Amino acid sequence: MSAPAASASVRRLGRLYVIPSLLGIVAPAAVLPQRTIDLARGLTHFVVETPKLARQFLKTLAPDRPLQSLVMTELNEHTPAERAADLIAPALRGDDLGLLSDAGCPGVADPGALLVAAAHRAGVKVVPLVGPSAVLLALMAAGMNGQAFTFHGYLPAKAGPRDAALRALDQAVVRTGATQIFIETPYRNGALVSAVLSECRPVLRLCVAVDLTLAAEQVVSRPIAAWRAAPSMDLAKRPAIFLLGRDYSSGALLM
Amino acid sequence: MSAPAASASVRRLGRLYVIPSLLGIVAPAAVLPQRTIDLARGLTHFVVETPKLARQFLKTLAPDRPLQSLVMTELNEHTPAERAADLIAPALRGDDLGLLSDAGCPGVADPGALLVAAAHRAGVKVVPLVGPSAVLLALMAAGMNGQAFTFHGYLPAKAGPRDAALRALDQAVVRTGATQIFIETPYRNGALVSAVLSECRPVLRLCVAVDLTLAAEQVVSRPIAAWRAAPSMDLAKRPAIFLLGRDYSSGALLM
Repeated sequence: MSAPAASASVRRLGRLYVIPSLLGIVAPAAVLPQRTIDLARGLTHFVVETPKLARQFLKTLAPDRPLQSLVMTELNEHTPAERAADLIAPALRGDDLGLLSDAGCPGVADPGALLVAAAHRAGVKVVPLVGPSAVLLALMAAGMNGQAFTFHGYLPAKAGPRDAALRALDQAVVRTGATQIFIETPYRNGALVSAVLSECRPVLRLCVAVDLTLAAEQVVSRPIAAWRAAPSMDLAKRPAIFLLGRDYSSGALLM
Repeated sequence: MSAPAASASVRRLGRLYVIPSLLGIVAPAAVLPQRTIDLARGLTHFVVETPKLARQFLKTLAPDRPLQSLVMTELNEHTPAERAADLIAPALRGDDLGLLSDAGCPGVADPGALLVAAAHRAGVKVVPLVGPSAVLLALMAAGMNGQAFTFHGYLPAKAGPRDAALRALDQAVVRTGATQIFIETPYRNGALVSAVLSECRPVLRLCVAVDLTLAAEQVVSRPIAAWRAAPSMDLAKRPAIFLLGRDYSSGALLM
């Protein structure tokens, strides 16, 4: 009678929990549901973008838990795709596995999809948990078209290609009406806003959402013509999301 | 001494809280942070997509609260843009205002952006709260490119234009690598999957994510070639998100 039970226990796979983390210094209960907190506290196996940041996050959730008990492997932009099979291995042995990125939702603007794809290939159940996504919160707060939108990640770093990319986004808004979302390394935020104001047409709307979910949260959304006339925002070193879209504010769509 | 205080109180504007709601029957603590629950419980003024559904949601959060004390106005796909100024009026009088859609995050795949744009125009601070978004959860769980993606909302309902749209999405994946996300009225889910399998190339990956955050949650993500060979999923009347993208599962990108 013991053989079938043993065989069933061997076959039991772990699950992959995709776990959002905090976007900065904020109380976990402000941005994470209790279920997300409880699940993250209960896991021992993690795949993380940066171990130091993952340990900080887990320490915030469970200050009394000894971090030495955790098994952490790394998945970042330098991880070769061939590593994915090793990373999912704990789940094949029956351990539940948590995926953590440096901030916000794994699988959005980070390399986490590599592990999630490996989970699907191996038949491991993938469970996405609720938490803060700066991209999504910015879209909710922008007052722009949320029925069609595109996230582009980072635009090119160099001025020439970046400006060409911005002109293409401006055209995409006019052609499709879809909101165009992009991000930038924080120290270049100011230069990016200046470029948007010079490259994009004044009737379009620019939203800049910074420090989302944090005490310093600020969302400014106005037509580019109004941005040109207003004093500039202080964006130095603040994590920001940028959205370019149609202007809904006047009743008639200004297209 | 009383005049400046009175004048300051007249000038105090309310805030607009953009409040995610549940995606179905689920405990609020599973998908909403305590802060979102507390803020939604504390508000008396709401702008909502469907009053009946909004009342159900608020009753789930605060079963003992009399619903008659709430002031609710409606914002749906039939609301003329000119109404936005009326809808934001409570905030101009100093009342905090909550925006609710039928399910998930206001401003994503719903008409809520109209009110948010009016808030920005009136100088009302917009505060997005964390909660479940089926679109975002599906992207986290899909194992596809999350560094570039496009949400298209509904594709055309008729077969001819819908198939043409699917071929355009297939081309977009090949050309840009970006994940293409779309939705369908639940009773047409099965027909949409059949159309994807016949119109899109077999090396691309299709993810179907249904009943997200609910007991029946299911996320299936595999190459279209594998979908063609597998028994079909039961999708009847289940809310679903569809994602078409590159296949990361083999290490090398199959493009």
